[in-house]
Amino acid sequence: MRMSQMFIPTLREDPADAEVASHRLLLRAGFIRRVTSGVYDFLPLGLRVLRRIETVVREEMNRAGAQEILMPMVQPAELWRQSGRWEKYGRELLRFVDRHDHESCLGPTHEEVVCDLVRRELRSYKQLPMNLYQIQAKFRDEVRPRFGLMRGREFIMKDAYSFHASDDDLAREYANMFETYMRIFRRLGLRFRAVEADTGSIGGRRSHEFHVLADSGEDVIAWCGACDYAANVEMAEARREAPSGAAAEVSETDTPGASAVEDVAAMLGVAPALLVKTLVYRARRAEGEDELVAVCVRGDDQAQEVKLARFLGADEVAMASDAEIESIGGVAGFVGPVGLTARVIADESLRGAEGLVAGANRVDAHLVGLSMARDVPTAEYADVRAAREGDACPRCGGGIRLARGIEVGHVFELGRQYAEPMGVVFQNDKGERTVATMGCYGIGISRLVAAVVEQCHDEAGIIWPMHLAPFHVTVVQLGKSEEVAARCHALCEALEEAGLDVLWDDRNERPGVKFRDAELLGIPLRVALGERGLAAGVAEVAVRGGEKLDVPLDEVAAFARAERERRLS
Amino acid sequence: MRMSQMFIPTLREDPADAEVASHRLLLRAGFIRRVTSGVYDFLPLGLRVLRRIETVVREEMNRAGAQEILMPMVQPAELWRQSGRWEKYGRELLRFVDRHDHESCLGPTHEEVVCDLVRRELRSYKQLPMNLYQIQAKFRDEVRPRFGLMRGREFIMKDAYSFHASDDDLAREYANMFETYMRIFRRLGLRFRAVEADTGSIGGRRSHEFHVLADSGEDVIAWCGACDYAANVEMAEARREAPSGAAAEVSETDTPGASAVEDVAAMLGVAPALLVKTLVYRARRAEGEDELVAVCVRGDDQAQEVKLARFLGADEVAMASDAEIESIGGVAGFVGPVGLTARVIADESLRGAEGLVAGANRVDAHLVGLSMARDVPTAEYADVRAAREGDACPRCGGGIRLARGIEVGHVFELGRQYAEPMGVVFQNDKGERTVATMGCYGIGISRLVAAVVEQCHDEAGIIWPMHLAPFHVTVVQLGKSEEVAARCHALCEALEEAGLDVLWDDRNERPGVKFRDAELLGIPLRVALGERGLAAGVAEVAVRGGEKLDVPLDEVAAFARAERERRLS
Repeated sequence: MRMSQMFIPTLREDPADAEVASHRLLLRAGFIRRVTSGVYDFLPLGLRVLRRIETVVREEMNRAGAQEILMPMVQPAELWRQSGRWEKYGRELLRFVDRHDHESCLGPTHEEVVCDLVRRELRSYKQLPMNLYQIQAKFRDEVRPRFGLMRGREFIMKDAYSFHASDDDLAREYANMFETYMRIFRRLGLRFRAVEADTGSIGGRRSHEFHVLADSGEDVIAWCGACDYAANVEMAEARREAPSGAAAEVSETDTPGASAVEDVAAMLGVAPALLVKTLVYRARRAEGEDELVAVCVRGDDQAQEVKLARFLGADEVAMASDAEIESIGGVAGFVGPVGLTARVIADESLRGAEGLVAGANRVDAHLVGLSMARDVPTAEYADVRAAREGDACPRCGGGIRLARGIEVGHVFELGRQYAEPMGVVFQNDKGERTVATMGCYGIGISRLVAAVVEQCHDEAGIIWPMHLAPFHVTVVQLGKSEEVAARCHALCEALEEAGLDVLWDDRNERPGVKFRDAELLGIPLRVALGERGLAAGVAEVAVRGGEKLDVPLDEVAAFARAERERRLS
Repeated sequence: MRMSQMFIPTLREDPADAEVASHRLLLRAGFIRRVTSGVYDFLPLGLRVLRRIETVVREEMNRAGAQEILMPMVQPAELWRQSGRWEKYGRELLRFVDRHDHESCLGPTHEEVVCDLVRRELRSYKQLPMNLYQIQAKFRDEVRPRFGLMRGREFIMKDAYSFHASDDDLAREYANMFETYMRIFRRLGLRFRAVEADTGSIGGRRSHEFHVLADSGEDVIAWCGACDYAANVEMAEARREAPSGAAAEVSETDTPGASAVEDVAAMLGVAPALLVKTLVYRARRAEGEDELVAVCVRGDDQAQEVKLARFLGADEVAMASDAEIESIGGVAGFVGPVGLTARVIADESLRGAEGLVAGANRVDAHLVGLSMARDVPTAEYADVRAAREGDACPRCGGGIRLARGIEVGHVFELGRQYAEPMGVVFQNDKGERTVATMGCYGIGISRLVAAVVEQCHDEAGIIWPMHLAPFHVTVVQLGKSEEVAARCHALCEALEEAGLDVLWDDRNERPGVKFRDAELLGIPLRVALGERGLAAGVAEVAVRGGEKLDVPLDEVAAFARAERERRLS
């Protein structure tokens, strides 16, 4: 393709509102443009990358036995009422009425529609299992869309839904999908990790997330360096050997102005790990009143709110206000577990610990010589701390490591939580009416475009993995000589014949602009030819983010093909 | 693919609410299912057909030099205000507010979004021409969605938008797109016609529609049997040689109870063509008051309302009420052009006619001996009649023929009507700020699925053209013999190796059911094998809608490949 005829509007300057690398580079390199908050156009290069990802996903889903369908974006409220989500789903579900005053919504996910489709056709266990997927635009009215394609409102997903006659068969398909996802992300050439995950608002019994590793990721994942354990920190069970102080009487001591862990530890001359950090949370549940609870973790640990909410069976936990802290007998900045009128949840690492320091629930005062067993006898123990680098793996005891990740895939064992209320039933092999059990499996196709860039870029621009690059090679024509132009044209033809997608930079621009754009666009291979190279019979071949070398003109195509194959394998 | 593992829910009975063949057959054959009014799921077979159409359209658009992009479904009201369509577009534009109270809509078309995209990047004439297209879901909140995919609310379209520095260049691209559309519909294997069309609500200077010919079509097109003239009847200029009666004095005669053309003609013993049919319309314009006009056509002609509206410069014309007729001096059932206080628009075929009969604007009375020139001297003449079979072609005088068609494509020379208000400007080669000129080009991808079925079906089911068939061949396995099953499997592999997409009917069903489903699904080739055939070493190969013959087992693949190639060429 001739670059002079393509719509690739590159920008010299960083766009003002782009905070992360992928957003900045995808805009600068002319892959996307913003239409309105969280809504983007894919320009020709961006769409080419999107389609490459779709193709890999589609091939692997088909190979795994899933069947592609296409469901609509506009969905009737009626179905969402049947699942109970019309009321429960928050404002991310964009609702509207049509001209006949029928309540409708834009689909952020398709459990309701696919259950409605399947229940109308399902009669016998012989029709199961069935795994239906689609690649389609979704809409979620995010309160704060950000980071470009990373957290948009309209986005492209691959979503799959499987239906089974038994939980065993669901487990089999869950494993099948897990393996399929591993193959997909491997084929995409990404550094990624599959981790155990919280089932969150989708619900269900078991779930794994797939994260592309990148420093800008919004999630933190914990993984073991010795075995294959890996989990979102919202789930990770990593343990630590926690110190105990010397047994002692408990007594109150003044700590004027010292409230932060480091200040108290320094003032009293103890290790931060011997402090008890006590946090008061308000736990909200769909039914029943809000509850205030105190949470104790080691001074050098952090409470993990998703783990806490799961332990409490709460929909959400939030830090309590000073007034709420006072209402249970605490004093903000000096809260400790002794004497509070609320439930105390202590992390497992505090079980049996002695010689601790904790807030005294009095301004400028702490307790020293605290024994959990003796002084906080009603404490409940649970895993409520965030895993840390160096913790022990819960499986093998190896060292836990942390990394930031971008969630690009998620698989769920849903069970019957949608099939039951929506009536997805069939006759089992004994002739009994039975509710189907379900799995669901998502991949964020448009988010992947951004996640790849987060993982694969440098100062100069994007570095596309060969599998995903909009073009495999760019031929940069230097100068205005007609002979050079003709030879570049011939090079493009030879490269295309060798099976590569070629972008020919035939623009009337200075070499500096062309080289800069080639780096910005992130095409894996660059072949540059000008009068000097032509005279010497060589083109300069550069690998994006790697080496450069001169290659005889008639060997360029073979060289590029070999380089491409090496990178695809 | 094994049919036993595919989601192809066929129905024995015709669905109650399906009025046209495509709707009925696509439901029965398990290609689509309804989600809500005008909104459908594409099941695996339906999606396969949709993708085949998309592929042909994409290949030809790329070959024509257009660039694929992807724009969003959700669009901000702001852009539609700039084009002026937020107010003008009717209730088919589905509007809503998001959680931040921003007014938005679901895109029924993308002129606004693409103009916004291009205007931000366009600086110089050197960037033009540019033709951007997408294949994407659209939403139009039709007041009465009907006929399944034919007139749905959510549907898939290919829409392209071209931008040019001059009207000459727009004309060149218009011709390029016209030829591209011809190639696309030829490749799809359809009987179709390109016709001159009204520009309607999209506006612009010139437009052509592409119609798939089918008796159930909602449009009527007129075409010449001798030259290549063809037009929507809303545009067609076909002429006729109209008779004139003998010159006479005008006089009033009683016609008790005779109001209909046939009754009056019979009572007075004259040919219907000598009657003047006078119709009163109310013409509505966006600006200014409604106007009442009288329209005269021959007694055996029909008025063509779109042609009338275009002549009047009206947005819409509708039949007037009896009271409105009286307000201009007419009497419903006996209206004639003489003595009315409104404008009289007479069809060209009445120019200079004499010896006519017309309503006398008195109950049970007509005028005879009417001369248009003498008795209706203020009449304006225009082409306002509907073309009829046998009319003379306006180009060559050949015989006009009529056919019903389904509009599946439409190309427009838009000119500057969007570029001007939206500010799509550039510097021309003289350095002057200039407004770009535009074309737009649509193909109804999902409507095509239905249109093909309307054209290609019989009593038993669909008859897919080879290019569009979800599978090229189905192997029907008869009986439960393991040897037959093994041989069918081998046949499937041989057929796949020969490059055909194969559906293997391995279901545990009676032969009658399998044959019926094969016909319903419309797979072009059917290979049936049971114990009897196996013993004789032959399979029965049937062409859908055609002949049947026995083919030796080891020649089936070669036979099928040859048959496929014959049909693709």
